Amino acid sequence: MKDPDLRLIFNLLTGVRWAALATLSEQGPEASHVAFVAEPDFSGVLLHLSGLAAHTRNLGNDPRASLAIGEADCEMGDPQTLARLSLHGRIEKLPRDQAAYGLARKRYLARIPTAEALFGFSDFKLFRLVVERGRLVGGFGRARDFSPQALREAASLPAK
Amino acid sequence: MKDPDLRLIFNLLTGVRWAALATLSEQGPEASHVAFVAEPDFSGVLLHLSGLAAHTRNLGNDPRASLAIGEADCEMGDPQTLARLSLHGRIEKLPRDQAAYGLARKRYLARIPTAEALFGFSDFKLFRLVVERGRLVGGFGRARDFSPQALREAASLPAK
Repeated sequence: MKDPDLRLIFNLLTGVRWAALATLSEQGPEASHVAFVAEPDFSGVLLHLSGLAAHTRNLGNDPRASLAIGEADCEMGDPQTLARLSLHGRIEKLPRDQAAYGLARKRYLARIPTAEALFGFSDFKLFRLVVERGRLVGGFGRARDFSPQALREAASLPAK
Repeated sequence: MKDPDLRLIFNLLTGVRWAALATLSEQGPEASHVAFVAEPDFSGVLLHLSGLAAHTRNLGNDPRASLAIGEADCEMGDPQTLARLSLHGRIEKLPRDQAAYGLARKRYLARIPTAEALFGFSDFKLFRLVVERGRLVGGFGRARDFSPQALREAASLPAK
């Protein structure tokens, strides 16, 4: 994967916090908004979800999920030119008694400090989307699939 | 459904143009970004998709789809307070030789004029998401399911 594409992945995964999750219910695929925080090596993405939400119930039945992360349509120009990517993979739980939980919580709150109160609610749990494949759309006609390896390369870029 | 919720639905469906679509591939649910334009009575949502895109191939195999429409995270405050909704339903094609095509194209371009050139590309086609059910999240702890009937009520509100 070329450097400008890796940089685009880096910018989207470190600059965006609000994305859309696709999960599978008995009635079909469902899209819903979630906050997310990418792990430093981009191998996974942290989600903090309520057990009361439909997407969390869906994930309990089928852990396959996908996250659409894109530049926000703030300027209302040509939306098709906005950079975006999709991460496809599987969700796993991060139980509170696991060693990784504390670090994940810290990482999540460093990026989304307003979520601190939600960690006090018993129905909210931390999850990790383990990325298996992805697709980048850097603008019109600039689309390519990428692997977890490309994500690791993007993660190793210096912050600009 | 109460008036503030109907107003929220109205504002999201008329004020947002960039959303995330959930479709089903053989490997699981997939989320990707798309532009959309709601029909005036909110019974359906127009999408203009490339046959080369993964979501369009997925829809050819399984027409069930869902669209997550939300306020953009432009201010980078607390993302959980952003209003959003999900529309679940089925995709149908709007063939060019159908009487409804011309009107749908006109509606789409009135809202997204920058898409005009895409109508000249043979791989782009108009689709309609026929909404069967939905869910509104008006902010933290303010979530409710809604029916196509609630959408029609929201559509009849006066523009503010």
